Order: sequence, then structure tokens, then C-alpha cells
Amino acid sequence: MQPFRRRDFMAAGAAFLTSRTLFAQNPPVADRRILIQDLVLANHILAAQGIVDGFGHVSVRLEAERYLLSRSLAPASVAAADIIEYNLDSNPVAPETRGSYKERFIHGEIYRARPDVMSIVHCHAASLIPFGITKIPLQPVYHMSSFVGEGVPVFEIREESANTDMLVSTPALGRALAKTLGNKPAALMRGHGAVIVGPSIIEAVSRAVYLEVNARVQAQAMALGKDITYLSPAEVKNRDGNSDADRSWNLWKQQAAQNAK
Amino acid sequence: MQPFRRRDFMAAGAAFLTSRTLFAQNPPVADRRILIQDLVLANHILAAQGIVDGFGHVSVRLEAERYLLSRSLAPASVAAADIIEYNLDSNPVAPETRGSYKERFIHGEIYRARPDVMSIVHCHAASLIPFGITKIPLQPVYHMSSFVGEGVPVFEIREESANTDMLVSTPALGRALAKTLGNKPAALMRGHGAVIVGPSIIEAVSRAVYLEVNARVQAQAMALGKDITYLSPAEVKNRDGNSDADRSWNLWKQQAAQNAK
Amino acid sequence: MQPFRRRDFMAAGAAFLTSRTLFAQNPPVADRRILIQDLVLANHILAAQGIVDGFGHVSVRLEAERYLLSRSLAPASVAAADIIEYNLDSNPVAPETRGSYKERFIHGEIYRARPDVMSIVHCHAASLIPFGITKIPLQPVYHMSSFVGEGVPVFEIREESANTDMLVSTPALGRALAKTLGNKPAALMRGHGAVIVGPSIIEAVSRAVYLEVNARVQAQAMALGKDITYLSPAEVKNRDGNSDADRSWNLWKQQAAQNAK
Amino acid sequence: MQPFRRRDFMAAGAAFLTSRTLFAQNPPVADRRILIQDLVLANHILAAQGIVDGFGHVSVRLEAERYLLSRSLAPASVAAADIIEYNLDSNPVAPETRGSYKERFIHGEIYRARPDVMSIVHCHAASLIPFGITKIPLQPVYHMSSFVGEGVPVFEIREESANTDMLVSTPALGRALAKTLGNKPAALMRGHGAVIVGPSIIEAVSRAVYLEVNARVQAQAMALGKDITYLSPAEVKNRDGNSDADRSWNLWKQQAAQNAK
Repeated sequence: MQPFRRRDFMAAGAAFLTSRTLFAQNPPVADRRILIQDLVLANHILAAQGIVDGFGHVSVRLEAERYLLSRSLAPASVAAADIIEYNLDSNPVAPETRGSYKERFIHGEIYRARPDVMSIVHCHAASLIPFGITKIPLQPVYHMSSFVGEGVPVFEIREESANTDMLVSTPALGRALAKTLGNKPAALMRGHGAVIVGPSIIEAVSRAVYLEVNARVQAQAMALGKDITYLSPAEVKNRDGNSDADRSWNLWKQQAAQNAK
Repeated sequence: MQPFRRRDFMAAGAAFLTSRTLFAQNPPVADRRILIQDLVLANHILAAQGIVDGFGHVSVRLEAERYLLSRSLAPASVAAADIIEYNLDSNPVAPETRGSYKERFIHGEIYRARPDVMSIVHCHAASLIPFGITKIPLQPVYHMSSFVGEGVPVFEIREESANTDMLVSTPALGRALAKTLGNKPAALMRGHGAVIVGPSIIEAVSRAVYLEVNARVQAQAMALGKDITYLSPAEVKNRDGNSDADRSWNLWKQQAAQNAK
Repeated sequence: MQPFRRRDFMAAGAAFLTSRTLFAQNPPVADRRILIQDLVLANHILAAQGIVDGFGHVSVRLEAERYLLSRSLAPASVAAADIIEYNLDSNPVAPETRGSYKERFIHGEIYRARPDVMSIVHCHAASLIPFGITKIPLQPVYHMSSFVGEGVPVFEIREESANTDMLVSTPALGRALAKTLGNKPAALMRGHGAVIVGPSIIEAVSRAVYLEVNARVQAQAMALGKDITYLSPAEVKNRDGNSDADRSWNLWKQQAAQNAK
Repeated sequence: MQPFRRRDFMAAGAAFLTSRTLFAQNPPVADRRILIQDLVLANHILAAQGIVDGFGHVSVRLEAERYLLSRSLAPASVAAADIIEYNLDSNPVAPETRGSYKERFIHGEIYRARPDVMSIVHCHAASLIPFGITKIPLQPVYHMSSFVGEGVPVFEIREESANTDMLVSTPALGRALAKTLGNKPAALMRGHGAVIVGPSIIEAVSRAVYLEVNARVQAQAMALGKDITYLSPAEVKNRDGNSDADRSWNLWKQQAAQNAK
């Protein structure tokens, strides 16, 4: 059996994941270490880019039925030692005394429903909230956020429970959110925030950053005029897999390092 | 008698405070020192988060009839040595030659009227001003600012005096503001700013930060569309006491330290 | 004769200035040095606060018929050695090989027309431009910018010349601007920026900062609703001389120093 | 023959360029080195000023039929060693293993069509996108962006190809963009960004910065009122060649250096 390599894993995508045998054992230690490094970096990048503040979280799939997520901590403060391994029921795999994010079920249930998803961001970015609480759908304003054109549904937690504290704090609510998300790259959460998914950490982080830009630009365009040309379905389709997010990642890495100084 | 501990104090809330015997003597020196540390930090955090500029102030209740507040100084510049102890008439307890904030009566009169309040922020944050000078009430746009759903009344100083310089610079004006605030978490001040209260420094600071975000988001949502879903009363109620503000506090502490470099 | 002291000078105001004998000789060297220090600082503060970018300038009156202004340089880069002394015709008093700001006539002609003015800021702050190019007058939204209630006229350079390059680059254009300014604290310049004056450097800088905030807040308030309560004439009058700008100055000084690191 | 000097080159403008003999040999090494230095700086400035993020690029003409552009890299990260020399077909002049920007044809084809153009910026600045996707033309709001009054056309890639991925990734698309640009200082690209050209690096960068400000200010002015006074054609014409961009350049250089710390 080949050693587990993250980039291959990403490239292989969902087909790869249906082969459970590949996940019958832990990936080699080196790859786990790299995934954790990237996940810590993703936390810092999302904070430095203003997508998360003291709240919000980002996870990465480790194996078909395992994911990595920080203990309950502000993303800017996350270090490698804070990363916990969870199963898809969102229980820590090893005995754990540290606090978990109350909303970790967002991650477990989406990974369960979406074998193609390798990384998940949950955030409360201010620019996204208006699109979750009005009836205005997000639409793709430019090529950097073309994935918006695949559709960004809105999760209404009231439809699941008339009596929540707004948090996706149970497996059932996580499943409901995953159902709303369907096969889309992101979903807004009414009165709460958003969840953004991707075939890699880099792609999920990049989508989170440009989803926020899209919201700001769309709001501004709508204020300017009624006749707006969004990306066409063909343009959205042609952009698919063409995000060049690696180039941003390297820049964001530097900026996150500066931010931490 | 148990030593005075801030967190217990906060947890015990108003009931605790009705027992004046507990305040018959000063709290132990250690606790006072911690309160002052946290108050200095609160000043720096509010500046780093853009809630206050050269103006605005934050106080903490020391005892039932005493509170701590900086001498008249820009919040970013406040150090432990600048903290003055005031009684509820907003007179310094010890002889004092340094200048006091002209509007310290905001603090004294709210502490007098609201035994549950342990900390008070006064600010002029730009995003809040529009909601004080129009007839548009603040409403809760997301879970982080759910407390807005308890109501944020607007203080109109003209109703108290046709001839003020806009400042709450007398005990009578302080009482009028406290009356407008009622049992709410915050009040806007027309043509001036806002006052935000909480059961702890951390909670008051967190509410100040998210009140500002709420104002920005609500303005943006109103620009997008007329049909807006705010948090329901049930959602507001279920969020109560669930702010997890400690997580933000630790992050803001780091950011304030970076800001001061 | 008493030594010239800046603060007394400021306190004495216009009445003081009508006595030309007091200006019959240069102020003592020490005071000139302090004025220059403050002027350099004002340059850095205006840059750090985002009021000026590579363009814009600030001056201070040295004597009744002399003022100090940097050579043509971005405000953030100004040092004491860059300060030039001008007469009210805006000619350097000493032989000078370094370039002068093309628009120094703004300063000379306002100082000539307004003996009460001790300092002048000229800027292109983006938030101010919309109020100069629409028919919407700036109005005082809160106590920090109460001076807006004294009136902020708009200078239309086309009324002076159908064929300008928009710059106030002649004595005649400077006089026209001074005439539009009249006895007001500030004037907008259509398609260009603003000029802000004050009885001291600190006051002029503070007004520049809060004029910009007022513009942002007013625009946001107008977007929210039609029924806006601006400060009343009585409130504006009662705020007069009550800006406490010294408190901001000390903070801005620190921020400018950080900015320069 | 005189040594090739960048500033003379700029001053001489298009007339100079029609004399191909001057380009019959490479410019002296020193000038190439200075051009590269300035180009690296332009990359950093555009990043520090928020005009580009991980994407976007800036080039400079080296000779009549050669231009310099970084390898495919985030502008903030570009160093002298990353600069590649291209011919007007946008092929590297020397054998090259490093990746090129997919959209380098923007540069080659505009240099071919516009002998007066010495430098080109391509960016995705968020404030510009709304003007590309609505029918609202950019108009000159103030003297710093007077060049907007020369006209900023919008490039609609759909008119060239119904099936693109939005990128100007072929010579044909580059020619189509150059045709839309015509003799103007800038063009918006629908659902993508903008291209800005100038007679020097400094001028192109300055225009990019102030084009972005113009978009923000115009949007805000349009939100305030319908009756807007833009610069007149005479005012635009009188501003021509009067941008004083050198003053900004020196400031931006310092800010870019701080940004890189």
C-alpha cells in the first residue's frame, strides 16, 4: 500500500474515499504531522484575514471516519498541541479532558454526508450575516468567488427546532445543516454565520476568504444598480478546479506569521 | 466570612449584592489587584477593538457602593496607577488631585440603580451613532449579539435638559440615563454614543464589541432588503448566559498587547 | 513684554492677535521649536489617522503675518528640518531652494482673513468628497463633531475660474477659498477635499479627524432613515470650546509613533 | 547614443518610442537593474495599498518589444530574482522553467497596441468589481483620480468567447482587452477586475490606487444623492500630467517596507 499523501488524497477525491480499505490503518505519522501543521496555519490565516474572531473553527479530514479540530479555543491561539482527533460522531478518539467546541457536530456530520469534503470552515464573518437574514441569495460577482454560483443555501435552524440557542450543538442539528448544505461549497446559517467546505484545507480557507469578499461586493453592487451581471453558469463551470488557491495560501501564511508577531 | 472572589461575585449576581454585610469591609487586596488588572486590560481591549478612541471609559464595581474607573485619560493609555476608587455619588473615596472623567456619573448612577451590573462601558463608536439619531431600533442580527434582543433604548438628553453640552456631567443626568437604561444590557445616547453594562468586565466588554458589530450588520442588512429575520424572543432567551465571552477575552488580551507594542 | 507662549496665545485668541505689537519681534526660540515639534507631530498624526495620504498639509501660525508649513512632502515623512517659514503672501521668508506646496496659498490667505485661526489642515479624505460633490450639507451627528453645526460651506472653484486644474495655486484662489470659509471651522472643496481651521494645532487636527467621522456617520444615518436628529444649535453652542482635544492628542501622538516604527 | 534613462524615456513618451533604433540594443545594465527594483517595489506597494491580494500583477516595458513581469507569484512576495523578461507575444525571452502568469497576454497585447504605455497593473480590487458588473460608469469624483474622466470602458469577455474561464489567458483575449481599453488610462473587466496603464511605473501604480478610491467615493456619493458634480472635461484636461505621483511613491515605498517587516 502506498503511503498516505495529502495532495494525492485531495486529487483522488471522492472515488478514493469510497475505498475504505485505504483507511483501515492510520496514515503515516509524517502526513498527520503535516495535516496538523496546515490546520494550525489555517486557523491563523482565517483569523489574520478577518474571517473568524474569537469564535469559528476549521477542521480537516484525517481519514474517512476521523477528523482533526482544535480544542475549544480562539483560532488565532491554536497550536499543534491543541488539535484533537474526532470520529464522525464528533467524540474524541482518545480520552480527552480538554473542552471541545460545542458545534463540532457541524464537522462530523458534514464529513459523514460528504465524502468529497476534506476540510470545513465555520465562521461568523459580519459581511455574510446580512445574506443569511434577508431573502437575498448570494450570487457570484467575480471569478475569485465563482464557486458561489454553485449555490449557497441558507440553513434555518428554526425549521429544526423552535427552541434552540442558535448553536449546532447536537448530531441531529449537524445532520440538518449537512442536509441543507447538500452538495454545495458553502451554506449560510441564519442569524449565525456560515459553513464552507472544500476538497482540501487550502481550498476551504480560500473559499471562506472569497465568500466574504463576494458578500461585500454583491452588497455594494446592489446598492449601485439593479441590473447586475453575475457569472453565468458556464463561467462558473469553467472556473471549477481553477482557483489557484496555493498562491494565496503562501501569501496568507506570511501575513499570519506577521500578525502573530 | 469567605474571601471576596470576583468570579463568585459575578455568579452570585444581584442576590449576593443585596447582602450589604458582605461589603462592610474592603475585599482582600489580592482581589482588588486582579480587578484593577482586568480593568486596565478592558481599557486596552476596547481601544484595540476600535470601540473607544481618545474618549470613552470603562468601570468595574469594587463593592456594592464603590467602583473603579481611570482618571481622565484615553483608554489606550490607562495603567494601574491611573485607577481611582469612587463612591456611588461618583466622588473619589480618597483625596484626589487628578482629573476625573466629567461623565463618571454614568457609572455611579447605573451602579446605584442596577445591583446586578458589575461593569459599565461608555463609548462613542461610530457605527452606533446612526441608530441613536434615527428612529431605527437596534435589533439582534445574530447569536453573538443576542442580548440586543432584550432591547436597547435610546437616551434623549434633551428630555432632561434643553440646555446641555450633551455630556452626562451631573448626578441628575446620570440618573436619567440609568432610568432610560432600565433593566436592559445597553442604551444608545442620541448624538453621543452608548452605555453597555454587564455582570462582569468580560461580559460588558464583549457586549460592547458585539453591539458595534450588530449595528454594522443591521445597517447592511437593511440596505439589502426589507424582509429581515432577527433573532426571535425565544432565541434571545435561550442565548442568555451563553456568550462564551472568556474565549474572546483571551484573544483580545493578546491583540491589545500587540497593539501596545 | 512677556515671552510668547503658545497656550496663552491660544487662550487669548483673536483679541490678542489684533494687537500687532506683540508680533513686532520673533517669538523666543524655544517656542518656535515647540511649534515646529507640534507641527511635525500634526503631520504624522494626520497620516496615522488616515486624514491625509501622500497629499494634504497642515500649517501653524508663527506670528500675525508668518506661518510654518513643510516643504512639498508627504505628511508622514515630514521632519523638523522640512519646515519652512512663510509670510502671508505665501513666499518663504528666507531664501529657499526646496519645493513649496503648490497650494500654500490656502494657508496664507486664510491666516490673513482669519486672525483667530492659528492652524490649518488641508486634506483629501475620501469620506468628505461625497459631501462636496452632492448637494447634501454636512450636519453635526454627535458631540465630538459639534463644530460641524457652525456650518461647513462648499468651495466651488468653478465659480472663480472656468479653467483651473482644481488646485488652489494662486493668491486669488486662496482668497476665494477664504471667503467661502468665512468664519466657519471648515469648508469642503468640491471635487478636491477640505480645509479645516482651529485656534490651535491640536484643535485643527482634532476637527479634521472628527469631521471625517461625521461624514461617515452622517452617510450611514442617511442610509438608515430619513428622520435624523442632528445636534441642535443650542447643543452646538454649548459644546463650544469643550472639545477636550488634548486627550486625543496624547493618544494620537503614541499612535503616530507606533505608525512610524 | 545616450544611455537609456528611465525618466527621460517617460518624459519623451510615445514620440520617443516610435524611434525603434533606440531599442535596437538592450538598455545599459544599470537601468535594467533600476527598472527591476522599481517593479519589485510596485508589486509590494500594490499589495500594501490593498489593490492586489494573492492575485494581480504589474509589469514595466523594458524596450519597445520587451517587458518585465514576475513569475507567477503573489505580488507581496515578488523579489528581483522572480522577474522574467517577455516579448510582446508574452513568451519568455530566455529559456524559462518557472511558471508564468496565465494572464500575461494582458501585458504583451497592451504594450503592442499602446506604444505610450510603459507600465500596466492588473488587479481584482473589490471596490472596482461593482462598477464592472452594473451599468454604472466610473466618473471622476476628485482631482486625484481626474484620469477617470478620460473614460474607463468595461471589457465584457463574453463578447469574445461564450465559453471562457474569465481569464485573459490567450493572445486573442489580450488583443480584445487592448481593443476595449483603446487609448484610455484604465478598463474594468466584468466579473474579474481592472487593468490600469501609465506612462511610467509610478503613474500606473498611482492610478491604480486612486482608481480604487474613486470607486469607493463614487459609490458613497451615489448613495447620498442623485445630483453629483463630477470633474468637468476641462478640469480633467487641466489635470493631465499633473498627478505629482512621485510624492505618493516615496510614501508608499516606506509603507511597503513597514508592511514587509
